[in-house]
Amino acid sequence: MQTLSENACFGGSQGVYRHASAACDCDMTFGLFLPAEAADGPVPVLWYLSGLTCTHENAMVKAGAQGWAAEQGIALVFPDTSPRGEGVADDPEYDLGQGAGFYVNATQKPWAPHFRMWDYVAEELPGILAADFAIDPDRQAITGHSMGGHGALTLAMNLPGRYRSVSAFAPICNPTRTDWGRKQLAAYLGEDESGWARHDASLLMHDRGFDGPILIDTGTADQFIGNLAPEALAGAIAARRQQATMRLQKGYDHSYFFVSTFMEDHVAFHAEALWA
Amino acid sequence: MQTLSENACFGGSQGVYRHASAACDCDMTFGLFLPAEAADGPVPVLWYLSGLTCTHENAMVKAGAQGWAAEQGIALVFPDTSPRGEGVADDPEYDLGQGAGFYVNATQKPWAPHFRMWDYVAEELPGILAADFAIDPDRQAITGHSMGGHGALTLAMNLPGRYRSVSAFAPICNPTRTDWGRKQLAAYLGEDESGWARHDASLLMHDRGFDGPILIDTGTADQFIGNLAPEALAGAIAARRQQATMRLQKGYDHSYFFVSTFMEDHVAFHAEALWA
Repeated sequence: MQTLSENACFGGSQGVYRHASAACDCDMTFGLFLPAEAADGPVPVLWYLSGLTCTHENAMVKAGAQGWAAEQGIALVFPDTSPRGEGVADDPEYDLGQGAGFYVNATQKPWAPHFRMWDYVAEELPGILAADFAIDPDRQAITGHSMGGHGALTLAMNLPGRYRSVSAFAPICNPTRTDWGRKQLAAYLGEDESGWARHDASLLMHDRGFDGPILIDTGTADQFIGNLAPEALAGAIAARRQQATMRLQKGYDHSYFFVSTFMEDHVAFHAEALWA
Repeated sequence: MQTLSENACFGGSQGVYRHASAACDCDMTFGLFLPAEAADGPVPVLWYLSGLTCTHENAMVKAGAQGWAAEQGIALVFPDTSPRGEGVADDPEYDLGQGAGFYVNATQKPWAPHFRMWDYVAEELPGILAADFAIDPDRQAITGHSMGGHGALTLAMNLPGRYRSVSAFAPICNPTRTDWGRKQLAAYLGEDESGWARHDASLLMHDRGFDGPILIDTGTADQFIGNLAPEALAGAIAARRQQATMRLQKGYDHSYFFVSTFMEDHVAFHAEALWA
């Protein structure tokens, strides 16, 4: 574990760490905010999964989450969005390959050797956090933006009991049906669509739901809303009678100005579940 | 005036605008956050001047100021730190030329034709804001970070009555004596040091002071503190019996993690003066 930086931040510490990842078979970098309370013992953690083109850094510097997390005494972890490096496959398009891991374990060439973001976020990184930092593995919650919202929702529904609460900012809700999804699921998982369903939040909501509260915000002026399909998830939530709040926020777009605007609400939402 | 972007943000709007600047004789770009209240009429404005290497964008995306400004009903303006473009002189070092205007009017070659950031921030941009946006020119305050803190303090003391309050994050306090200052003042203003004094906050504090409240935060772990010389300004403030709060924040460095941590305090400090 290599410490790339540690900065005092809202009474705690914003760190950036690099480690050799077994899941992704390459070095991986993540950000971790620890509130002051972490000096005295393990604290709850909120995962923040980022969207297309992002690294661990975007939300860490632009989402304005640390102040609210400090107020609530919870940690924030900001994983990268894909494996990276010279030997890692990539694609010239922004929405496939490096920066676009989609939180799946790839089975197809050329992606399979490194693109195992599901295992990285679901298994490897949680183990590292619990072993090396003052993080309480029994108090985890998860959120994300866009592709990261897709990751948060699909991880939460596939891993019952893991997260106390799940939220998302402008999540990709129905990737088996939209352009942000079909291309990537085909590339990473193959043309056989039967393996795609467990990576589609709307289908998971129909089949399983989530045993806890859900909060989702999407902007009415989101320039990518056709690829997000919030209507699919909204319909599935209503049909299932799932405990959830889905908000369409007037005039907001897909940017971090939108994310930061509603971050206070999301951190407070998770803190209520994490400290219950 | 060209609108480069406008994003909904904390109930208001975060815009980025470009215009032909007469002061700098080139196109200049600035960010402007308008709170929801600006739809109903002119609102107070807090200027945020950025540091070395920054553009209009850094603080706009990393300082976390908009939420607090929205809460207080005040606008934020984020000017660039220098003239820019093909025909504008530059230097290979990060601390001179483009990105390093130091908020002075250059008199020396090759800088004199464009490097007139004093006139730009003191005269031209305020006129544009008052003419084209819902900004109340009678309610202005100013802050900044590092080189921008130097700019905020020197503008405030040189323009009595202009700003109701002034604050700074890790400001360069005594540039006539430190490496962040002597090199640039010599390059922009010439080797005759008699013209430098009006661009040195500690000397201005000794000679004039400020008719209003001052708030200054500097981190005890600031890696550039030798070039900031807060002790010079602290001594001058005390000697003058100037109304001021100077805080040394334990463990904080020079980064935006430091700035964002104390932004709530600074916006509230200015709001109290702006709404008085």
